[in-house]
Amino acid sequence: MEFVTGVRKTDTSGIRELTKEGMEGACVRVEGAVHAIRNMGEVSFVVLRRRDGLLQCVYEKGKTDFDIRKLREASTVRVEGMVHREERAAEGVELCLTGITVLSEPAEALPLPISKWKLNTSLEAKLNMRSISLRNVRERAKFKLQEGIVRGFRDFLYSQGFTEIHTPKIGAKGAEGGSNLFRLDYFHHPAVLEQSPQLYKQMMVGVFDRVFETGPVFRAEKHNTKRHLNEYTSLDLEMAYIDGFTDIMAMETGFLQYTMELLAKSYERELHMLGITLPDVKQIPAVRFDKAKELVSGKYSRPIKNPFDLEPEEEVLIGQYFKEEYGSDFVFVTHYPSKKRPFYAMDDPADPRFTLSFDLLYKGMEITTGGQRIHDYRMLLDKLAARGMTEEGLERYLDTFKHGMPPHGGLGIGLERLTMRLAGEDNVRETTLFPRDLGRLEP
Amino acid sequence: MEFVTGVRKTDTSGIRELTKEGMEGACVRVEGAVHAIRNMGEVSFVVLRRRDGLLQCVYEKGKTDFDIRKLREASTVRVEGMVHREERAAEGVELCLTGITVLSEPAEALPLPISKWKLNTSLEAKLNMRSISLRNVRERAKFKLQEGIVRGFRDFLYSQGFTEIHTPKIGAKGAEGGSNLFRLDYFHHPAVLEQSPQLYKQMMVGVFDRVFETGPVFRAEKHNTKRHLNEYTSLDLEMAYIDGFTDIMAMETGFLQYTMELLAKSYERELHMLGITLPDVKQIPAVRFDKAKELVSGKYSRPIKNPFDLEPEEEVLIGQYFKEEYGSDFVFVTHYPSKKRPFYAMDDPADPRFTLSFDLLYKGMEITTGGQRIHDYRMLLDKLAARGMTEEGLERYLDTFKHGMPPHGGLGIGLERLTMRLAGEDNVRETTLFPRDLGRLEP
Repeated sequence: MEFVTGVRKTDTSGIRELTKEGMEGACVRVEGAVHAIRNMGEVSFVVLRRRDGLLQCVYEKGKTDFDIRKLREASTVRVEGMVHREERAAEGVELCLTGITVLSEPAEALPLPISKWKLNTSLEAKLNMRSISLRNVRERAKFKLQEGIVRGFRDFLYSQGFTEIHTPKIGAKGAEGGSNLFRLDYFHHPAVLEQSPQLYKQMMVGVFDRVFETGPVFRAEKHNTKRHLNEYTSLDLEMAYIDGFTDIMAMETGFLQYTMELLAKSYERELHMLGITLPDVKQIPAVRFDKAKELVSGKYSRPIKNPFDLEPEEEVLIGQYFKEEYGSDFVFVTHYPSKKRPFYAMDDPADPRFTLSFDLLYKGMEITTGGQRIHDYRMLLDKLAARGMTEEGLERYLDTFKHGMPPHGGLGIGLERLTMRLAGEDNVRETTLFPRDLGRLEP
Repeated sequence: MEFVTGVRKTDTSGIRELTKEGMEGACVRVEGAVHAIRNMGEVSFVVLRRRDGLLQCVYEKGKTDFDIRKLREASTVRVEGMVHREERAAEGVELCLTGITVLSEPAEALPLPISKWKLNTSLEAKLNMRSISLRNVRERAKFKLQEGIVRGFRDFLYSQGFTEIHTPKIGAKGAEGGSNLFRLDYFHHPAVLEQSPQLYKQMMVGVFDRVFETGPVFRAEKHNTKRHLNEYTSLDLEMAYIDGFTDIMAMETGFLQYTMELLAKSYERELHMLGITLPDVKQIPAVRFDKAKELVSGKYSRPIKNPFDLEPEEEVLIGQYFKEEYGSDFVFVTHYPSKKRPFYAMDDPADPRFTLSFDLLYKGMEITTGGQRIHDYRMLLDKLAARGMTEEGLERYLDTFKHGMPPHGGLGIGLERLTMRLAGEDNVRETTLFPRDLGRLEP
């Protein structure tokens, strides 16, 4: 009988190994995709693309059995060679080739110049050929940073006693109710795609006290803007036994601090490649919704049109104000009007026209919505009634509150937006792996 | 201006803190839900349920201002008290109460006896009242273990150079094609819910070499069994530069080894609570599909009806065989018939009726399907043609291969099934937070 005993030691090397002390002159084997070939006559340079970076390989006539003219870009290869320190090479080392084995070949030449440092291709073309355009190392670096953000979110929350949950995406009713829901037929029952794990994470906060989820959410909004998606990844948390919604803001600030440190430590290469300076998150200013409107109105001579609404231009100006006055890329805007928040939001007892809630703006764009939730069963029923909403489809949610719930609150972070702001992109599609919008369902 | 500076130090304690050396006699504050109240006359015991366990509190008349008769189960409270070592208490300590503050109260009494050690309630009732039944600490422990499995999967794969990705769940076409797809209207375009991230993770393997995703998948199958769900969490990985599909099995074995260690180390309390002994995964036997059928047929005197199909009963017997003969709960069954695998599976050059693929059985149930994929563009076109499939909807996927792809393979693990087997449950709904099946869309 054969047995599988775990990951086998490989006889191939990664780039990091080649750059180690004492590797000069070592003979190694490396696998990768042929990213670029530059023929200089007697010598050719073959750049290999691997998950850990680009490796320059030097081909000299007569040193291998392989005819370099037969090598094509986008082939994948296994090469043998001798490690040579070379300051001018991307990784500080190059490989003097002694052998090349082709593992696979393309059927056609590449449609995009992916080996260029900056891929000056339209967003539309990049998205149409997503799996090709991301072979450009700067394009893919954005998604490596995105990984770091999600990883930071989870690892920080584990350290804070949160439990990860997986809630269903097909449901009988959406969290915020009403419109903007994708509808489907579920074995002859009407169903929707969940626009948020909101109701489920609240139900679970009575079980684990602190829960989080990182998963897809679906919004059938007919927005066609640079910052809206119809499907995105939401980083959600919900926590019990809070003293107020500032506990949630404190937790988010902690997450940002942890994650920026993680990125600085473990994603240094990607940050460098994209020329990103991480934002300072030691302290984040917090300002009331109405106060923020006043500040912006005063400084930028802009009349307040509607005291209960925040226009996108106002968001941008609030961001600008706090950058100019306090040097902060982030600002918490608190106490949003009750009308603008869903039924489960806790109204401010001091002034019920506003809620105990917040948004986090990053460079003038909302990346988080959060706040304290109603935990009292009767208060919840009253709020539903006041809004003219029925309990239909909410029975199980309401039962949870009927049988006791701790004071709690939470938040949802749009992963692609956070990445977009961090990477300094101006369209959220740039930091979405395979975007779904009004006009895009493929790839 | 106010600033948020990160997570604040709390003045409340967790149970672990109370059990530390030198805490005897300390005055502490603890928050939790009232899990059970036992009135013994002069003394009452109040059990608090927290995310970190159950804490026994002792109420003595006259020691607090609070009237214990007013305390109700399922209320949430903040209590003050003195730490007292008590061998007989669940955590080895109890709290002698000096104060009780009620934070919230239930509107109605609990519908389930959640404070019982074993919740002897029907599965149907447990699922209907999911957010209540999971307040039973043994019920919720299963989902803490599930967290550990996902965490192990990710952390192990990070250490192996994998990149986490987030692929869309709404698509134009499903991975396996054909039936079993939930359909929806996407802004007047026909769309489906992805039954697997298969095509996307393959496309991304040309970018990052090694990728993984943990997310929901959707299957509109009309199965009504103890092991089928219509939405579940899939742990997916895909890796390039493999020498063969055994590399994938080796990676999965590595994941299982890493995860069992993580569970033993960090989820000891849950394992103990559920009486789970972790399986031995030092080595996992691997057997060919046809050979497995023969072995089972021989040992259990069962004629082989169809050499190209594996019946559920045969899976169970294969599991039994390898438990009896080799003491293993796991067995890799390799070389599945080509007809039973999707178009992207690589056929075995030695016998194209079979594929370079595998399933992993755990106690006689399939928890993983994996294998090597076709990476050559023309071979892929030929396979599609041979199956009478069109390229429609697969254009972007096929383009990826047109422009070169490394040899690669991968797998998908059903999270709920793996948890079910680990926890010794006989219905996958027991280890699914909010199951979706033919008859269940709520809660």
